[in-house]
Amino acid sequence: MRSSQSAVSPVQGPIIQYQARADFIDLSWGHPPGSALPVQAWTEAVQAALTRFGWQALTYGHAAGPGPLIDWLAHRLGRIDGCSPHPHELFITAGASHALDLLCSVLTRPGDVVIVDSPTYHLALRIIADHAVEIAGASADADGIDPDATADLIGRLRKAGRRVPMLYLVPTFANPTGSSLPVDRRAALIEVGHGTGTMIVEDDTYREVCYEPPAPQSLWSLADRAGVVRVGSFSKTVAPGLRLGFLTGEQSLVRTLGQRGFVDSGGGVNHTTALSMAAFGESGAYDRHLRHVLAGYRLRRDVLTAALRDWLPVARFRAPSGGWFVWLQLPSWAPTGRLLVHAEQHGVSFLPGSRCYPYDHGEQQLRLAFTLFEPAQLQEAVRRLARAIDSASFTAGDVE
Amino acid sequence: MRSSQSAVSPVQGPIIQYQARADFIDLSWGHPPGSALPVQAWTEAVQAALTRFGWQALTYGHAAGPGPLIDWLAHRLGRIDGCSPHPHELFITAGASHALDLLCSVLTRPGDVVIVDSPTYHLALRIIADHAVEIAGASADADGIDPDATADLIGRLRKAGRRVPMLYLVPTFANPTGSSLPVDRRAALIEVGHGTGTMIVEDDTYREVCYEPPAPQSLWSLADRAGVVRVGSFSKTVAPGLRLGFLTGEQSLVRTLGQRGFVDSGGGVNHTTALSMAAFGESGAYDRHLRHVLAGYRLRRDVLTAALRDWLPVARFRAPSGGWFVWLQLPSWAPTGRLLVHAEQHGVSFLPGSRCYPYDHGEQQLRLAFTLFEPAQLQEAVRRLARAIDSASFTAGDVE
Repeated sequence: MRSSQSAVSPVQGPIIQYQARADFIDLSWGHPPGSALPVQAWTEAVQAALTRFGWQALTYGHAAGPGPLIDWLAHRLGRIDGCSPHPHELFITAGASHALDLLCSVLTRPGDVVIVDSPTYHLALRIIADHAVEIAGASADADGIDPDATADLIGRLRKAGRRVPMLYLVPTFANPTGSSLPVDRRAALIEVGHGTGTMIVEDDTYREVCYEPPAPQSLWSLADRAGVVRVGSFSKTVAPGLRLGFLTGEQSLVRTLGQRGFVDSGGGVNHTTALSMAAFGESGAYDRHLRHVLAGYRLRRDVLTAALRDWLPVARFRAPSGGWFVWLQLPSWAPTGRLLVHAEQHGVSFLPGSRCYPYDHGEQQLRLAFTLFEPAQLQEAVRRLARAIDSASFTAGDVE
Repeated sequence: MRSSQSAVSPVQGPIIQYQARADFIDLSWGHPPGSALPVQAWTEAVQAALTRFGWQALTYGHAAGPGPLIDWLAHRLGRIDGCSPHPHELFITAGASHALDLLCSVLTRPGDVVIVDSPTYHLALRIIADHAVEIAGASADADGIDPDATADLIGRLRKAGRRVPMLYLVPTFANPTGSSLPVDRRAALIEVGHGTGTMIVEDDTYREVCYEPPAPQSLWSLADRAGVVRVGSFSKTVAPGLRLGFLTGEQSLVRTLGQRGFVDSGGGVNHTTALSMAAFGESGAYDRHLRHVLAGYRLRRDVLTAALRDWLPVARFRAPSGGWFVWLQLPSWAPTGRLLVHAEQHGVSFLPGSRCYPYDHGEQQLRLAFTLFEPAQLQEAVRRLARAIDSASFTAGDVE
């Protein structure tokens, strides 16, 4: 009788995106470890912003983002890239993924063709596909996208009557390859964009995750700020849960974004968080935190690449000088789709390379994200991967 | 010589959306006053969330929103509406405007027809129009949208080969009219939605801004949670700068939203803020703050409506029992387009009714937002409006 009034509550749903499995090392997720997230310093930044800006931190924000963050970012980009944007060339977004979605909304219409690097960030393929466009993979080799072949591709599509308004790539410490596009290809690709009128959307998420500075200059800065939109993020440097990013682009594009109905209605897309980031940056906490996380990520990169050389000599890779990923090339007798089943049986996982192409390819490639797990777990992951490849059942090919 | 190294910095850009003008009472903006924004209490909520959830508050969040906020919201909606959603029927958004934009993305495609109440929220027209659809205004009278005429309209459009996937309205304490749709029309409109398969998108932003409780049951709850998506917001009850809202809808729709590329890539769309809101709600701060702001808004409504009765007897209106707006009907000799010029010369402004219709209408109507200014300023605004209407230049119609 005592419990007759208590309804049965459903179990509370998950808080975060990644659900850990016991004794399972899942290197498919590009997530930060808890130790790389600035719990105390971010709390202080929010306090500082609310103290300094008061109610202005809580009301409808300026459409392109609040002045203090715009200014801090303009100054910082001047330090870490080829040039500093004019404040009217900056737009604060709710993360890099939101920026890409927003850019697709204003640049494309259904039936258009969007060109992407191949391989490319697999979830960017999903974001772009949400806009009912066709995705065409550009020719690329180990150094990245091929500008001449890309110009030919755009030319052929145009001749066939297609609109090709946008080219997406991650040229710096790329997701998934970890590589950076050489400077001569950057220059040539910018020429292709200028010549065809196709807007280059440069995903510059990993610029600050740089282990051997300086990072290459962005396409945006090399292009003299025309014909390129660069998308940046605070997810890798500060915290992805904040959902805060930015873009630099031509002033006319920034104006167009500020005039989207939902921006005009709701004001700046993540205003309170943006002002807190301004406080985080101005106080020096950003620099201190970035040094801390870079040390942790560099160590993980070194541990993982050493373990791969020691225990998985069949795999070829380039040690990345920035970013979160190592891209492995496996021999032809070890297709990653089939390997994935065995790897998971051995308690390890990865992202199959085939998911990073818009066409049927990548069966000998895979992406390892080295950020989420501790160095000892990365070593154990490589041991498990080696055991999975060496297992008789794998080499015999007897997977049901 | 001393200043030769100092570059000229551009002036810092604006922080917030609304730029006040000296001695100008602009009642066109539906914004809160600084005194209605919980600077101290929100700071404490962020601290509490970061203390309780630690790094989980800063990493990629669960796509539909974090469990603690989903649970708190489900419970609260059970108290303030006809029924409580199942947790899988809730999706946390980056504000109500973002929710509407997102719903347009998944429900419509270019060339579709979207039905709206007339008048309706003027910036919703902009958000919907961004999706390259045609907007058709439903027939309505002083009590709101006419369900029978709406069924006829949808039928005629369908017969002409058009898709009509969505109907948008603000049925409770509406923007711009302040009125609520009577319950019999709610029931009839739900029948229309169920009969035609047109999804009703119910903008429920003002439910909690209720001066004479209870607020009418939502269409979503009356419809037994099928065929209606209800959009809610924390912008009017807590703070618009947070960019936090939610929607309740069918589980299949919530799943579809969680599978959008940018949500899959970035996780929950405003994760850290969502967990802070859970802390704000659970601590009792939400209830305390809401009582505080309701007292202020109720006073402003009473002062404004009394002043209108005293000093602007030519205007007809219904005193709203919730929301942020009073909707005025002016005599035919006082078209609001022309009045606006005179009003601004007298130091007062408003939203012309014509902006709230998707077709040419509303020339005798205007919207006054009573939230942003102090009671004495509201009285002064009405005096100025009366002087503008009475001015010889206005009645003579000699505006260039």
